[in-house]
Amino acid sequence: MTRNVGIYIFDEVEVLDLGGPFEVFSTASRMKLRLAPDTAKPFEVFTVADTLRPVRARGGLTIQPAFELTDHPAIDVLIVPGGEVGAELKREVLIAWIARTSAKASLTASVCTGAFLLAKAGLLAGKTVTTHWEDVADLRAMFPDLTVVDDRRWVDAGDVVTSAGISAGIDMSLQLVARLEGEELAVRTARQMDYDWRRLP
Amino acid sequence: MTRNVGIYIFDEVEVLDLGGPFEVFSTASRMKLRLAPDTAKPFEVFTVADTLRPVRARGGLTIQPAFELTDHPAIDVLIVPGGEVGAELKREVLIAWIARTSAKASLTASVCTGAFLLAKAGLLAGKTVTTHWEDVADLRAMFPDLTVVDDRRWVDAGDVVTSAGISAGIDMSLQLVARLEGEELAVRTARQMDYDWRRLP
Repeated sequence: MTRNVGIYIFDEVEVLDLGGPFEVFSTASRMKLRLAPDTAKPFEVFTVADTLRPVRARGGLTIQPAFELTDHPAIDVLIVPGGEVGAELKREVLIAWIARTSAKASLTASVCTGAFLLAKAGLLAGKTVTTHWEDVADLRAMFPDLTVVDDRRWVDAGDVVTSAGISAGIDMSLQLVARLEGEELAVRTARQMDYDWRRLP
Repeated sequence: MTRNVGIYIFDEVEVLDLGGPFEVFSTASRMKLRLAPDTAKPFEVFTVADTLRPVRARGGLTIQPAFELTDHPAIDVLIVPGGEVGAELKREVLIAWIARTSAKASLTASVCTGAFLLAKAGLLAGKTVTTHWEDVADLRAMFPDLTVVDDRRWVDAGDVVTSAGISAGIDMSLQLVARLEGEELAVRTARQMDYDWRRLP
């Protein structure tokens, strides 16, 4: 069984917020196929944006989205990265898409300020969550029903997982690989990436 | 003074090999402007590819190059990421471009298997270098005049710096920020990225 990992991208998305999870899930697939060439690859990773117009990530990296909001394959794992999310928070069509897509997904995860978008879509109500250390106070102020912690790399709240700033999305994604495909594949993926996986949240 | 950081990209480039350095240099610029709003930004980061045709990175992330080999701004810091470099090694036009661009740059750096491209361009002759742990034996076999080490995150050989696998490009890029703009900015950049910078090579 192949799980579709859909990463939402937008203008001013943080490069590593999307690049970290993309690297982890695609490398995990590659590693799995090395170990077991005859199995289906565990993850198919793709980007989804508002339209098919190129997206300008923070710092100017230009990414061509694979799919648009109105037409994409079913998403099993929805990843919402952060960056400058102010404009995104005001887009009702997007917030409704996140709520709808998450409801059909088995897992939804945010990196950094992507947590604001999940909160706005009502996915974090009553949950313990985290975000970039610089934005903890704002997330608490905007969404007082959340318990926002600032001492963990990620918080696993079951079907919704939030991670701290930028690089923490790598550690969280490795944890999701461990949850979905087993610890051994996650360890091999981290080793392949030469990454010192911080396995404790 | 703003330094132009040019990152070469190609089909099957490893996502984090390019995304890590892109994130580090662009975040360093953002942090510097916060500290000193009236100064020039220290780094302008952009991608350069063979042509302006979109590049398909490993796993399928599609990147629109900012510039092409025959027409780009002067490059002060040349970054050559890795990935599947077999096809790239055979491209004489590219190898000549790397040699020429490096000669005019103040610093040239590789991530992961990008070291093979620097070696092919003659930039590593007689030097101590590193690459992804999986490719150390191949690099030694193909270029017997190099001293290839496998126990460091990066090797600073002065005007040429090579780094180990995938995520090591983040640590190396932070080290380059420290060299070029001072330790304090590199520490702030790592903190902003929530990254546990491995400061020892």
